[in-house]
Amino acid sequence: MSIVVVGSVAFDTLQTPYGKREKILGGAATYFSLSASYFTDVRVVAVVGEDFSSDHEAVMKKRGIDTRGIQHAKGKTFHWTGEYGENVNEAKTLNTELNVFETFQPQIPNEYYGSQFLFLANIDPVLQTRVRDAMLGVKLVGGDTMNYWIKDHRQNLGKMLERVDVLLINDTEAKMLADDNSLPRAAHKVLGFGPRALVIKHGEYGATIFFGGGQFEGGHHPFRAPALPLDEVRDPTGAGDSFAGGFMGYLASQGEVTRRTMKHAMFYGSVMGSFAVEQFGTERLQSLTREEIDQRFNIFRELTHLD
Amino acid sequence: MSIVVVGSVAFDTLQTPYGKREKILGGAATYFSLSASYFTDVRVVAVVGEDFSSDHEAVMKKRGIDTRGIQHAKGKTFHWTGEYGENVNEAKTLNTELNVFETFQPQIPNEYYGSQFLFLANIDPVLQTRVRDAMLGVKLVGGDTMNYWIKDHRQNLGKMLERVDVLLINDTEAKMLADDNSLPRAAHKVLGFGPRALVIKHGEYGATIFFGGGQFEGGHHPFRAPALPLDEVRDPTGAGDSFAGGFMGYLASQGEVTRRTMKHAMFYGSVMGSFAVEQFGTERLQSLTREEIDQRFNIFRELTHLD
Repeated sequence: MSIVVVGSVAFDTLQTPYGKREKILGGAATYFSLSASYFTDVRVVAVVGEDFSSDHEAVMKKRGIDTRGIQHAKGKTFHWTGEYGENVNEAKTLNTELNVFETFQPQIPNEYYGSQFLFLANIDPVLQTRVRDAMLGVKLVGGDTMNYWIKDHRQNLGKMLERVDVLLINDTEAKMLADDNSLPRAAHKVLGFGPRALVIKHGEYGATIFFGGGQFEGGHHPFRAPALPLDEVRDPTGAGDSFAGGFMGYLASQGEVTRRTMKHAMFYGSVMGSFAVEQFGTERLQSLTREEIDQRFNIFRELTHLD
Repeated sequence: MSIVVVGSVAFDTLQTPYGKREKILGGAATYFSLSASYFTDVRVVAVVGEDFSSDHEAVMKKRGIDTRGIQHAKGKTFHWTGEYGENVNEAKTLNTELNVFETFQPQIPNEYYGSQFLFLANIDPVLQTRVRDAMLGVKLVGGDTMNYWIKDHRQNLGKMLERVDVLLINDTEAKMLADDNSLPRAAHKVLGFGPRALVIKHGEYGATIFFGGGQFEGGHHPFRAPALPLDEVRDPTGAGDSFAGGFMGYLASQGEVTRRTMKHAMFYGSVMGSFAVEQFGTERLQSLTREEIDQRFNIFRELTHLD
């Protein structure tokens, strides 16, 4: 089954201990789409400016991604500038130029409405809720958010949380959202805000999925997927969105959303996140094969399974 | 097979968000011994003062621990005072009274020499090396250390590292020891200092074992054990030593040290660490059953295994 993603398509200028890149293709929807494209048909809703060339769009098209939902607006594309120090888990934002993204009004092409899966990448929760309500018939909605919306747009975020099935956020965001420093306690509180499942991404320590009461077939204990102990993380940008793409993309490919498929989705999410950070930008995600993905899936199994 | 542990037996005065305790039984060798006692015969080498009563010693004896190696010296027992804030991963030391521990000279009772397993808990690396050399014939030596020895006693620590088979430390210690902020890279560097295997404890994220070249049967990929997402961590004191007790105790109970037994040992270590933190001090470790331990082992399997 196909999946629709709404979010940012952007340019990133960034520096890591491994080097520097100027205005390379980035954005949550981009990472998500490329990652999910190895599992299922992906349809993207976003906005770009006049500096977004057909070469940029070709990166997505080559992976079979439907880009009819990318609006071309007057002005420049969203441009993020940041750097990572020795601790690659923390990005330092140097500059954010929202440009055409500032007035983004998602428009869903008619052809997208048959999709059964939807991912609301990190954008204004008001827009997330609007898109979600426009696609009421979907089977599963995933969503992301960030500290900015948690701190200053709490009421709008609350409405969005009531409308997503699976929320994917990181440790810091979960603790901030629940106002609780215990991660498992924070998880249970966040599940109380609406989502039926909560994926908390722990960076180099992997990710845990927590389940709310009674809605998924097959038991409700948490499940933890590892991350790969990688010697060299060249560029951590997009790791979380690539995780979400692997997670949601795999679920969409299976159609059935059960505890069993979600556990496998956690592993695929972690696998895609591990690929994303090996090279700068989307480079690694452009040239993977399903065989490489499944090989790494097996390494993850070996890394955690007793027998 | 039995295991000998050398380390501190102490009193702890501590405060956590769940309450306060005055001079309760603690110390690395105590936590290690109680934890390992559920798997194998344990023999402890330590020193205590005149304030250490037969009631204190009875806690160990009840678990069948051989306490003939506990020296009773003139003066007071080692006394640590500390507190944990909202972030239970970090202890703040308020006071350390070494007392009789300051001049500790480990003496190994003759009856202990048949043991095939040895654990060098966190003490002066000069003493660790001395004990290790006195028990040259053992099959497997585990060791721990801390930032103090890493920073200011590096040469002595280096000699100790050449003589241990498995080093068990936490993330911060591994990065400090290797002088490298990438955990996998730090792991490989530390393995270059001597140990055949390195267990890095990640607190609430579990632990990873990294293997050096060629010495253990059955492959050398890293292996990661989860920690249990516990809503309430009442007192994190001794979690790492309890992990080490479960890890080493299980290995000693199996006799064979292979990749397979080490993977199971990682799970048992994590299980024992998760019990330790549920109650203050050694309370929970005094009253477990092997059945409870194996039940939790199965929860850990459920938490990480796909099928």
